[in-house]
Amino acid sequence: MSATRYTYLGPEGTFTEAALRTLPEAATRELVPMVSVPAALDAVRAGEAAGALVPIENSVEGGVTATLDELAKGEPLMIYREVLLPIAFALLVRPGTELSGVKTVTGHPVAQPQVRNWLAAHLPDAVWESSASNADGARLVQEGRYDAAFAGVFAAATYGLHPLVTDIHDAANAETRFVLVGRPGRPAARTGADKTSVVIWLDDDHPGALLELLQEFAVRGVNLMRIESRPTGQGIGNYCFSADAEGHITDRRVGEALMGLKRISPQVRFLGSYPRAGVSPDEVGPVRAGTSDRAFTDASDWLTRCLDGRF
Amino acid sequence: MSATRYTYLGPEGTFTEAALRTLPEAATRELVPMVSVPAALDAVRAGEAAGALVPIENSVEGGVTATLDELAKGEPLMIYREVLLPIAFALLVRPGTELSGVKTVTGHPVAQPQVRNWLAAHLPDAVWESSASNADGARLVQEGRYDAAFAGVFAAATYGLHPLVTDIHDAANAETRFVLVGRPGRPAARTGADKTSVVIWLDDDHPGALLELLQEFAVRGVNLMRIESRPTGQGIGNYCFSADAEGHITDRRVGEALMGLKRISPQVRFLGSYPRAGVSPDEVGPVRAGTSDRAFTDASDWLTRCLDGRF
Amino acid sequence: MSATRYTYLGPEGTFTEAALRTLPEAATRELVPMVSVPAALDAVRAGEAAGALVPIENSVEGGVTATLDELAKGEPLMIYREVLLPIAFALLVRPGTELSGVKTVTGHPVAQPQVRNWLAAHLPDAVWESSASNADGARLVQEGRYDAAFAGVFAAATYGLHPLVTDIHDAANAETRFVLVGRPGRPAARTGADKTSVVIWLDDDHPGALLELLQEFAVRGVNLMRIESRPTGQGIGNYCFSADAEGHITDRRVGEALMGLKRISPQVRFLGSYPRAGVSPDEVGPVRAGTSDRAFTDASDWLTRCLDGRF
Amino acid sequence: MSATRYTYLGPEGTFTEAALRTLPEAATRELVPMVSVPAALDAVRAGEAAGALVPIENSVEGGVTATLDELAKGEPLMIYREVLLPIAFALLVRPGTELSGVKTVTGHPVAQPQVRNWLAAHLPDAVWESSASNADGARLVQEGRYDAAFAGVFAAATYGLHPLVTDIHDAANAETRFVLVGRPGRPAARTGADKTSVVIWLDDDHPGALLELLQEFAVRGVNLMRIESRPTGQGIGNYCFSADAEGHITDRRVGEALMGLKRISPQVRFLGSYPRAGVSPDEVGPVRAGTSDRAFTDASDWLTRCLDGRF
Repeated sequence: MSATRYTYLGPEGTFTEAALRTLPEAATRELVPMVSVPAALDAVRAGEAAGALVPIENSVEGGVTATLDELAKGEPLMIYREVLLPIAFALLVRPGTELSGVKTVTGHPVAQPQVRNWLAAHLPDAVWESSASNADGARLVQEGRYDAAFAGVFAAATYGLHPLVTDIHDAANAETRFVLVGRPGRPAARTGADKTSVVIWLDDDHPGALLELLQEFAVRGVNLMRIESRPTGQGIGNYCFSADAEGHITDRRVGEALMGLKRISPQVRFLGSYPRAGVSPDEVGPVRAGTSDRAFTDASDWLTRCLDGRF
Repeated sequence: MSATRYTYLGPEGTFTEAALRTLPEAATRELVPMVSVPAALDAVRAGEAAGALVPIENSVEGGVTATLDELAKGEPLMIYREVLLPIAFALLVRPGTELSGVKTVTGHPVAQPQVRNWLAAHLPDAVWESSASNADGARLVQEGRYDAAFAGVFAAATYGLHPLVTDIHDAANAETRFVLVGRPGRPAARTGADKTSVVIWLDDDHPGALLELLQEFAVRGVNLMRIESRPTGQGIGNYCFSADAEGHITDRRVGEALMGLKRISPQVRFLGSYPRAGVSPDEVGPVRAGTSDRAFTDASDWLTRCLDGRF
Repeated sequence: MSATRYTYLGPEGTFTEAALRTLPEAATRELVPMVSVPAALDAVRAGEAAGALVPIENSVEGGVTATLDELAKGEPLMIYREVLLPIAFALLVRPGTELSGVKTVTGHPVAQPQVRNWLAAHLPDAVWESSASNADGARLVQEGRYDAAFAGVFAAATYGLHPLVTDIHDAANAETRFVLVGRPGRPAARTGADKTSVVIWLDDDHPGALLELLQEFAVRGVNLMRIESRPTGQGIGNYCFSADAEGHITDRRVGEALMGLKRISPQVRFLGSYPRAGVSPDEVGPVRAGTSDRAFTDASDWLTRCLDGRF
Repeated sequence: MSATRYTYLGPEGTFTEAALRTLPEAATRELVPMVSVPAALDAVRAGEAAGALVPIENSVEGGVTATLDELAKGEPLMIYREVLLPIAFALLVRPGTELSGVKTVTGHPVAQPQVRNWLAAHLPDAVWESSASNADGARLVQEGRYDAAFAGVFAAATYGLHPLVTDIHDAANAETRFVLVGRPGRPAARTGADKTSVVIWLDDDHPGALLELLQEFAVRGVNLMRIESRPTGQGIGNYCFSADAEGHITDRRVGEALMGLKRISPQVRFLGSYPRAGVSPDEVGPVRAGTSDRAFTDASDWLTRCLDGRF
């Protein structure tokens, strides 16, 4: 039944599955791996799944363009949760294989730059060939096509492999951010440590448009946490911007900034307000003076008094 | 009875009286000249007059600081109307005086720079002495103390004088702006060609405060027509700003800008929204894209749909 | 000889004379009182004086418009020094007069709001009449026309009067700023606690022009200390702005901001860089990161390397 | 010899090779295909090639992250030329194959979204499998592994294939931008239709940093043509920005903007000024008033006169 089904970017044994399993509700859902981000999201659009977990940003590789573009186009979807997962690879081998016996290695192309230095230091002569996913690489090792695969350590059991080396990652702090996407509905409840995602199209041929977009946030004291340009598909030089802002749509400063964007942009798509992963409300700093809900309410009351001539 | 009484900056025969008489309702009011701007306004504050007409800006001399400061301080007042009056002087003499017989001239100190060139060309040897007002100068001519006074041509009859020369003004386009001030009440109705006046205090020691103030207007597409700094009386370097913006407080873009100012400023005083003198609604250009009331309403509806998850 | 002559806003005994006498070089100059600010400045323009001391700003009354306008128009002049003088009045009477005998008082119109409260408390029944200057008021008391005059205590000796009460000032921190003006020449040397004055005309009908003007300063981290609009004389709605900025024209950030203003404005008039009165260099805070002369030089060196392809 | 060698993203028959062959000098160079963007660029860094042509942006897929990141990190490189190539695919088959006989198709993963609609309409039952490059797909067809490959029509001859259908592209205006990269040297000469590329790091934890970055361009009237965030590798939330601005480093407005960025940013990397592909100087609009080289020179002359007191 769709209400109990979550799709995710498969196959089994990927980091996405590991991220999904960190969500408490995952325990009571049917988790279905899909071959691609569009496939995972289309299952949600079609009502065949209640949600889909997909990667959206990697601290080494940047935005996951398939996810950014799928959320920007087609039938609207919304983000309800985010998950941050540290990314560390294990070198998975068939039981009995030793490091000296590893001549060929595989993994997802995205994994390659994250293990390049480790490979150069420990397996300088090994030949790398890319596979369709880290989990797929593990399967190909199981089948004997390669000697070793870089994948999450959790993939070892699925494919009957042995984690010969663990915690491999060239960059410190490597992590991937995933989002749980569903059909449009009421945003996740405000927690005090929230994030609001939006896609904003700019007017062509209006040089200052990006600056004006940022000023709609800045003048209300709303901090941007991420902004990425994406092509609109209308030719080079035509972009939309995918952005995450601090705060929740029910925060007055965020709501007013969103309305400002709506007014100046040819198109704005609200992608949801949801809790920030890894940040508790008491870790969030104070808002800029004059931008609290209280300040907005006081100003609104004052305007009403002005309209009545009561000061 | 106070409801039928208007005070104005006197004495009789000043440009202020002439400006007041351009208002249709002046015909049915008791018009009372006062010795100073504070006196005219205090009569309103005390409930002894329904309104006061006072000069606020002169195209040659600039802002009338007594008016700006009175409106910024003390018990609140509001502006309900403005009047623009072209300023041209007549040279008033006792009947029978000829130009060659004018050895001494008088007038308000403010008049002097506006007739300086004319004097140099036509009465190079005449001695100027200032009087307390242009009308007062006319009275002193009547009394025989000076040979001629610069004043409005309308002052001739009041003082039994003859306008020997008329339409004297060094600067082209010399005009004075007057405002009709009353106790706080509902603002004048929106006409489509309106102006909103406000006084805004800035945070001390916050270098970017004026820029932020202007951005509250700019981000909502509200044009400023006038902005003047005034000392707060707290020592050199402490200012407030008196400003006129295009539009009416009931225009959504103006209302939101005012609330923005209220939130970022230690103090804001709303001085009224009122029709622009000399401009009809069809002479007012279109507002910037995305700042019409319709654009605000659409954005507000959109935000409501976002909050409900209906796109 | 003109090189040894300084004019000032007279007559003798004014606060302007007192301010002028605080300058060490005044001791070796011939100090000549003039009847008005334009007269004092025209003597400099004509080469009849090496400098003129005139008031430019009062913490209670605001900018001295005669000075602001004279500096903005006509043949260029430059500011080389500023003087800050606390403003406190003495009640000057003929020897023998007691407070109970004071029925009429006089003083410059500007003095009146600064002693209003004191008058209400101590001489509620005294009649005020304005005089052309505070010193002129003292002279009229000497001549017996009024019982008492508000003036600087230093005027007592000049006019043979007795300071019955001293240190009268309604506002705390009342002070006036004076500037020493000369013909254009090399600016005063940089001290590290400097101020740069400028007059900037705005494009008509360009609503964002003031914002752009402020951004030329802001983007280079130059703080504005004062900005005042003045009418251009071309009709209501046409303004230029008189501004003081922190720093010296030889500071790279100030020079670049001035050039930015010059490029975007129809007209800019440089009025000088000179030491800030009452502030020593070690009281001046650090400049914003990235706006020191060192940062400018480093960036310039880097650009040169970029042009050469040497990184 | 390296001075006559250009590398490019291979293998032979890719769009990159086609783009490279549009450069006149390609006719006299040895063109060497490389397995990856890093490999093509490292050959330049190592002095083994004089230049490398690599894709940097695709109108459908967005920025080519491998190229953006290689240019941002490691030993500095510079861009000297750009090439725009319309992207249209041919369906390459072995001679004799008809459309009805195509059961399996291949191509680079990036090609797939660009031919998806065409496939659905004309070969709804064909099975897609990705290949390492479009040219590699053609080779696999040659070897008989797939029935057809999507590739540039120019790849047909290389692999002995027949272009069964040509000009296939789902999106109108699909094109890819390539850059010719070399070791740092003097930038390409100014043509009047130029572009300047730069990578700018932002201060962590400084919410307004991106806005300030844009203002350094805006205040000098420099239009941004592209801006993309890229992760710095220091964890999620740490970004640098890759940007293209209109104009040449020798344009005064561009040079001053670059110096401004250098001053406010912890790190800036100049990537070159070079002619805009597909735009001639007479198609470039006028610069904003006050930002021409002439305006800069006039302002600089004026500042010099101010420093000398000559107006």
